[in-house]
Amino acid sequence: MKIENIDVSAYPKSEKIYVEGTLPGVNVGMRKISQYPTVKIENGKRKEYPNEDIVVYDTSGAYTDPNIKIDINKGLPRLRESWIESRNDTELLDDITSDYGRQRRNDKSLDAIRFPLTHKPRCAKNGKRVTQMHYARKGIITPEMEYVAIRENLDNEKRGIKTYITPEFVRDEVASGRAIIAANINHPEAEPMIIGNKFSTKLNTNIGNSALSSGIEEEVAKAVWSCYWGGDTLMDLSTGDNIHETREWIIRNCPVPMGTVPIYQALEKVNGDVSKLTWEIYRDTLIEQCEQGVDYFTIHAGVLKEHASLVNERLTGCVSRGGSIMTQWCVLHNQESFLYTHFDEICEILNKYDVAVSLGDGMRPGSTHDANDRAQFLELEVLGELTKKAWEHDVQVLVEGPGHVPMNKIPENMEKQKTACSEAPFYTLGPLTTDIAPGYDHITSAIGAAIISSLGTAMICYVTPKEHLSLPNLQDVRDGVISYKIAAHAADLAKGFPGANVRDDALSKARYEFRWKDQFNLSLDPERAKSYYLESRRDAPDADDKFCTMCGPNFCAMRISQNIAEKCNKE
Amino acid sequence: MKIENIDVSAYPKSEKIYVEGTLPGVNVGMRKISQYPTVKIENGKRKEYPNEDIVVYDTSGAYTDPNIKIDINKGLPRLRESWIESRNDTELLDDITSDYGRQRRNDKSLDAIRFPLTHKPRCAKNGKRVTQMHYARKGIITPEMEYVAIRENLDNEKRGIKTYITPEFVRDEVASGRAIIAANINHPEAEPMIIGNKFSTKLNTNIGNSALSSGIEEEVAKAVWSCYWGGDTLMDLSTGDNIHETREWIIRNCPVPMGTVPIYQALEKVNGDVSKLTWEIYRDTLIEQCEQGVDYFTIHAGVLKEHASLVNERLTGCVSRGGSIMTQWCVLHNQESFLYTHFDEICEILNKYDVAVSLGDGMRPGSTHDANDRAQFLELEVLGELTKKAWEHDVQVLVEGPGHVPMNKIPENMEKQKTACSEAPFYTLGPLTTDIAPGYDHITSAIGAAIISSLGTAMICYVTPKEHLSLPNLQDVRDGVISYKIAAHAADLAKGFPGANVRDDALSKARYEFRWKDQFNLSLDPERAKSYYLESRRDAPDADDKFCTMCGPNFCAMRISQNIAEKCNKE
Repeated sequence: MKIENIDVSAYPKSEKIYVEGTLPGVNVGMRKISQYPTVKIENGKRKEYPNEDIVVYDTSGAYTDPNIKIDINKGLPRLRESWIESRNDTELLDDITSDYGRQRRNDKSLDAIRFPLTHKPRCAKNGKRVTQMHYARKGIITPEMEYVAIRENLDNEKRGIKTYITPEFVRDEVASGRAIIAANINHPEAEPMIIGNKFSTKLNTNIGNSALSSGIEEEVAKAVWSCYWGGDTLMDLSTGDNIHETREWIIRNCPVPMGTVPIYQALEKVNGDVSKLTWEIYRDTLIEQCEQGVDYFTIHAGVLKEHASLVNERLTGCVSRGGSIMTQWCVLHNQESFLYTHFDEICEILNKYDVAVSLGDGMRPGSTHDANDRAQFLELEVLGELTKKAWEHDVQVLVEGPGHVPMNKIPENMEKQKTACSEAPFYTLGPLTTDIAPGYDHITSAIGAAIISSLGTAMICYVTPKEHLSLPNLQDVRDGVISYKIAAHAADLAKGFPGANVRDDALSKARYEFRWKDQFNLSLDPERAKSYYLESRRDAPDADDKFCTMCGPNFCAMRISQNIAEKCNKE
Repeated sequence: MKIENIDVSAYPKSEKIYVEGTLPGVNVGMRKISQYPTVKIENGKRKEYPNEDIVVYDTSGAYTDPNIKIDINKGLPRLRESWIESRNDTELLDDITSDYGRQRRNDKSLDAIRFPLTHKPRCAKNGKRVTQMHYARKGIITPEMEYVAIRENLDNEKRGIKTYITPEFVRDEVASGRAIIAANINHPEAEPMIIGNKFSTKLNTNIGNSALSSGIEEEVAKAVWSCYWGGDTLMDLSTGDNIHETREWIIRNCPVPMGTVPIYQALEKVNGDVSKLTWEIYRDTLIEQCEQGVDYFTIHAGVLKEHASLVNERLTGCVSRGGSIMTQWCVLHNQESFLYTHFDEICEILNKYDVAVSLGDGMRPGSTHDANDRAQFLELEVLGELTKKAWEHDVQVLVEGPGHVPMNKIPENMEKQKTACSEAPFYTLGPLTTDIAPGYDHITSAIGAAIISSLGTAMICYVTPKEHLSLPNLQDVRDGVISYKIAAHAADLAKGFPGANVRDDALSKARYEFRWKDQFNLSLDPERAKSYYLESRRDAPDADDKFCTMCGPNFCAMRISQNIAEKCNKE
C-alpha cells in the first residue's frame, strides 16, 4: 500500500518559524502571519504604516514546513528521538513483545496494507520510570518541558507581555499533576505540548473507522487534516477492521499526541463478545499499543460493579462505549472490573513508555436529564482515588468529563472534579448544553466547552455536526476543529491567558481598516472567510473594498466612524 | 409583480394545533409532534408502549397550517384586526399621512413591484394611547396578553408542570416594563409574542437587501424561511432599492413582529448625505413605517454629541450603522442628536400605533478589545434615562446590547443594563466571544448569546456565518436561526423555564431507544439530522437500526446499556 501525499494547502501569508531553546534540539515551530501596511492619505499623500507580524500556535507540524519533504509512507521526522536516547534510561527491544503485535506482523496477508517501515520498539530499562512526571519530580527540566514553555509563550516576550510560563513552571505543574505532557517514547514524531488549566486550552479530535465505514487512507487524511486545522491531540477510536495497521499509519504521520481506548481493540480481539474479555487480552493490548507509540489511553477503571444498577435510574443509561462494556463485563461475571483491580499493574506498564492515563468517565451523562447525577459523581470519586494511585507510579493523568450538561450545572461539575481529583487536568466532551439539535451538536457543545474551559477545564474534546448521527468526514473534522478552536480561544480570552488577545486585536484592527486580506489571513479559517466574502463581491476579487459588504458603500459604520475620527482629529 | 408561493415543507409527523383562550378569537397555534411507540419484546411477544405527543412553540404561523391557503400576493389572515377594532380607541384613516408614503403610492413606475392589495392605515383616536403597556397599566388583560400566556405555557398544564405565567402575570410584567408585546395596530397579521426575562428566550433574525444585493422576492422568502425555522421576530435592515415596497410585502406576509431601523431609510431619502438628515425627514419616515405596520423601531437616541470623541479611543470605533450616522450628524452640525432632543415627540407618535422602541446601542463594541468601555457604558446610562421617558408615554421598550464581548465581561454588561435600564428587556446581538473566526460567527456569538440569555437577556439577535463578510442567503438564515434556537433553548434550560426540558427528555429517550425517526422529528432541524444519518446508512433508509451509526453494531454503548438493564431487571 502506498498513500499519496495528503494535500494540505499552506495558510496564506504565513510562514513557519522556529524558536530555539537552550537545550539541544529544542526548536519550536510556530506560524507567523504577516500583514499588509495600513494606508492613510495625509496632506494628499499616500503614507504606509507597517503592521506587525502575528505569531500563532501551530499544530500542523512538518506539514506546513516547505523545507521538509512529506512522505506519508515514510512518516514524519523523529524529533524527540535524540532526547529520549540521551536520557539513557530506555533500550531498544529486538522485537515487539505483544503477542497480538507479533501475530499481526507475521500475517503475510496484511503486507498489502502495512505501513512500509518498521521501528524497533523502545522500553524503559529494568526498574526505570521514564515519564515526564518522574523527571519533573526529580527536579529535571527535560527538552520537552522547555519546548512547551516556549510554545505556550509564542512571541509574548518580544511584545513585552508578561507571562508566568517558564520551563521551571512547566516542570512544577507536571510534578504536581496539574498538567501533563503526553509523550510516549515510541512516538518521537510528536511535538511536545502541555495540557493543564494554567496553559492555553487544548482541543482533541476523534477519528477512527467503524464496522460501517472508512479505510486507512481516509483515516490518515483525517488525522493530517485535524492537525492542519488546529487539533492539539488526536484520538483514534477505530472499532472496525485492521485497527492495528491503521494506528501504525496514523502514529507515524501524526505530529500531535495520539490517544486510544484500548478496550475497543480488546473487544475486537474476542469478536465483540464482552463475556470473553480478560485481563490478559487487555494487558497485551496495552503493550501492543505502548510499543506502537500511543501517547495516552482512555481507561474506564472507575466503572465499578456496584455502579451497574445506577444505570437503570437514568433516562439514557450508559452512553460511554468503554463504560458500558465494563459494566456489562462486571454484571456478566459478577466480579469487580479488571481495570480497577489491575490498576497498579496498568500503571507499571504505562510508566515504562510514558503513556498517560486518561481516566474515562464511563458514567458520563448521555442527556441533560442525567447530568450531575449519582452515577456520574460516584464514579468521579473513584477517578479521584485512581488519580492518586497513578501519581504514585509517576503516571501522568487526565480525567475525562461529560457529555450532556445544561449550562447551570456546569460549574458544579467543574468544582467536583477539581476537588475529587486533586486538580488533575479535566478533559471534557463538550458538554452539550441541550439535547434537541442533532446535526448541530458542534454548536450545542461549543457553548458548554467554552464555559467549562473558562472555569478550568484543560482540554476539550471536539464534537462534529455528525455527532449522534454518523461518523465525521473531512469537512466535519474541519467544522468540529474550528468550532472547538473558537471555544478554546474564547476561554483563553476569558481567563486572561497571556497574549490571548493579540490575534483578536490584530484581526479587529484589520477589519476596521478594511484590510480584508489581513482579516482573512488572521482568521481561523482563511479559506472560508474569503469565499464567503467573494460570494457577494465576485466583481472585486482583490478584496480591497473600503466598505463592508454587509452594508454597502453608503451604510458602512466603520467607514463613517473613520470619517468622524478624521474630522475630530482635525478640529 | 406576482410572487409564487414560497415553499416551506411541513415538519414530519407534526400537526398544527390550536389552544383556545377565554377571550374572543384567542386561538393559539402550536406544533404537536407525535411519536412512534416504544417496542419491547416481553416473554417472546412484541409489546408496544405509546410515547406522548410533544407540543412545541411555533413561530411559523399560517405557513404550516394546511387548512389556510397561502397566497403571498394577498398576505396572511388578519388575526388581530377584530381585537383592535373592538377596543374602539383607533380609527381607520382615509389615506396615508406620510408624505413619502403618498409619493411612493402615486409613483406609477412602482406599480410593477408593489404589493397588490392596500389596507387603510389605522391610528389612535385623538388623545388616545393604544399600547399594550397602556392597557396593562389600566389593569386590562387584552387578548394579546392572554394569547402570549397560553403560548408560553404550551401543554404544561396537561403535563402537571407548574408555571407562573398567567394572563395576569403577563399584564403585570408588561405594565412594569419588564416585558413587551410588540404589536403595531397596522400589523394585525402578526401572532402576539412576548419578550421578557421571565418568559422563554426569543430570537430575532435580520434580513434586508443592500445596494449590492437581493430583490423583493428573495427578501420575502428569507422572511418566511426565518419564521419557519424558528425566528421570533424579524428585522428588515434593507438599505438598497425600494425599501418601502419591500417592507410592505414582508409585513403583509409576516406572522411575527417586524422591526426596522428608520434612520437607514431616512438616509436613503437624502441620498446617503448625513449632513442633510433632518428631524422632519426622520419624523415622516416614522409615520410612513407606523402606517405600514412596523412593530418596533431601533432608535439610536442614546448617541450624544459629547460621546463622539470617545470613538477615537477605541480599536474599532463605532460599528453600529445607526450610531455612526448619528455621531457624524452631531459632529457635522455641532448639535445634539435630533433623536435625543425629539425623543418625547417620537414617543407620542409611537404610542398612537403601539410601536415599541428598541433603544439602539450606537456605541456597542465592535471588537472584544472595546467591550464594556466608557463609550458603551455612558451610552447605556442614557438609554436608561430614555427608557423611563418612553415609559412615561406608555411606550414599550427594548434595550439593545453588544456586539463583541469576551465571556468574562458578559456578567458585568448584563448587570449594568439591569441597573441602568430598570429591568427593561435586554436585546443583544450575540455577543461574539472572540474576533478571530469570520465565517463562523454564528458559533462565536451563540456562545455569548447562550451565556447572556441565561443571565437575563430576553431576546438575542442572530448572527449568521456570513457576518462581517456578506449578506446572508437562505441557507445562512437557517444556520443562524438554528444556532440561536440552540442558544435560547440552552438558556431556558439553565434558567429552569417551566417545561423547557420536555423536548430534550423526549428526544433523549427516543435516542436511547433507537427510535431514529422520533429523534429526527423532535429535533430543531429534522431534515438535516436525517440527511446526516443517511450519509452512512444509505442502505437503511428506514432508519430503524438498533444501534448507533457512529459505533456500529458491536460497539453501541446504548445497546449494551439496555442489555445490562434487562439483565439487572431479570435478576
